[in-house]
Amino acid sequence: MNYQKLIEQIQAKRSFLCVGLDTDILKIPKHLLDSPDPVFSFNKAIIDATAEFSVAYKPNIAFYESLGWQGWKSLEKTVEYVREKHPDIFLIADAKRGDIGNTSKLYARTFFEKLDFDAITVSPYMGEDSVKPFISYPEKWIVVLALTSNKGAADFQFLKDEQSGNRLFESVLKTSQAWGTCDNMMYVVGATKAEKLKEIRQIIPDHFILVPGIGAQGGSLQEVAANGLNSRCGLLVNSSRGIIYISEGTDFAVKAGEAAKEIRQEMEQLLKTANII
Amino acid sequence: MNYQKLIEQIQAKRSFLCVGLDTDILKIPKHLLDSPDPVFSFNKAIIDATAEFSVAYKPNIAFYESLGWQGWKSLEKTVEYVREKHPDIFLIADAKRGDIGNTSKLYARTFFEKLDFDAITVSPYMGEDSVKPFISYPEKWIVVLALTSNKGAADFQFLKDEQSGNRLFESVLKTSQAWGTCDNMMYVVGATKAEKLKEIRQIIPDHFILVPGIGAQGGSLQEVAANGLNSRCGLLVNSSRGIIYISEGTDFAVKAGEAAKEIRQEMEQLLKTANII
Repeated sequence: MNYQKLIEQIQAKRSFLCVGLDTDILKIPKHLLDSPDPVFSFNKAIIDATAEFSVAYKPNIAFYESLGWQGWKSLEKTVEYVREKHPDIFLIADAKRGDIGNTSKLYARTFFEKLDFDAITVSPYMGEDSVKPFISYPEKWIVVLALTSNKGAADFQFLKDEQSGNRLFESVLKTSQAWGTCDNMMYVVGATKAEKLKEIRQIIPDHFILVPGIGAQGGSLQEVAANGLNSRCGLLVNSSRGIIYISEGTDFAVKAGEAAKEIRQEMEQLLKTANII
Repeated sequence: MNYQKLIEQIQAKRSFLCVGLDTDILKIPKHLLDSPDPVFSFNKAIIDATAEFSVAYKPNIAFYESLGWQGWKSLEKTVEYVREKHPDIFLIADAKRGDIGNTSKLYARTFFEKLDFDAITVSPYMGEDSVKPFISYPEKWIVVLALTSNKGAADFQFLKDEQSGNRLFESVLKTSQAWGTCDNMMYVVGATKAEKLKEIRQIIPDHFILVPGIGAQGGSLQEVAANGLNSRCGLLVNSSRGIIYISEGTDFAVKAGEAAKEIRQEMEQLLKTANII
């Protein structure tokens, strides 16, 4: 999917919500465990209930890998299902990969050819050649970790470079910009670091920013929007646990739909206030 | 496997060789493609031919993922095979994972419970809570990226922190040491950065260092040993393409065995010269 189409989706759905499919077999409603593929059954129901209010889904690959090859099957089925039933959805593999070029090429083959994802999250530690193989695909994206939502972000991401005066996450934003364009690169900035979004917008006024961390991790949508929206939206805000695990009963999908709808209402208001729709 | 047992293996085999199982379906000998699981058949033959000369194997997860769930099956079978036939081998998942604590826990479950790896490579960008879940398992290890072998290492790993004067890879080494011990943490330092190994040994005199990049990537074993060996060895040196793809014929395993044996001879000499055996 290209930049323009993504923006059209946001405008049509009046939403910049990304639903995180952190589907944990230990947390999904018990009645699903009888189905032949409980993880896929869960995802399918969640997707159908929330697709009206969401522009993106972000399966967290860790959860699928933890089930071995059966988990990969569930992931493949989930991707195929979205492609078939909801072709307008933007699909992000939350994989945080990144390796030498030779290996990153393989990861790209996995997530962009074998699985038809639109985007993949990538760690910048190994630099340009670890990231480049992903952006050689037309209409595919990388989402580079800049400032993450967790406590450990403080360990290295704020180290200040002696020469440029940039903190590490700023160096990542500034250096990596040259590797691609606004059409194939996004950045991760955690919602728990919303106060930093304003500064980050100065560095990357036009790029999309993927913001995890609202809900369970404590970030605020209002703050994120106030600091992160640009004139064409430029935000995808992710919620995982706050939507998908809101009920453990047979009504889990209905409740997830309601939670997504509620966030969409808030987002619609924010988009209107900012004159984006 | 604990530190002491790993050292005993190195002494017994007179080798600190790690064989990288970067098994690419596009590169393995054509005659294997008729077998029901070509990737596993290749790995099995390579392992049997090289186990006498190697203390560790390092499947690069990217290569298995690129085949989807079938690739994960091949990986699972490879791990089971090593555990059954060569129980003294140290098994490293080259996965370069790392995410918020909640997610890293899942990755740990995958690689240490679902798959019985001894160690996993981890990217340090997200800091302590992304790394800690892996080292809560007894006799399991994390291998933290410090200074990688690729060109892109120069993009961020050498940025010099204003306050401490440390370059990023040095900050990673110094800060992360406190997260675990020599019994559950190793570091990745690329063989192409061998001249930096001497400095790195000052920071981590006792930790094991995993060194990829000899052979195809151009690093030298002699230089690595001269700068990286400590009094108990403290090195695992990886070779992938230089061993596993040395022949495309039906003699691929024999040739791989010969290549591993040759490296072992060199390693044996280095261990003797350093009075380690």
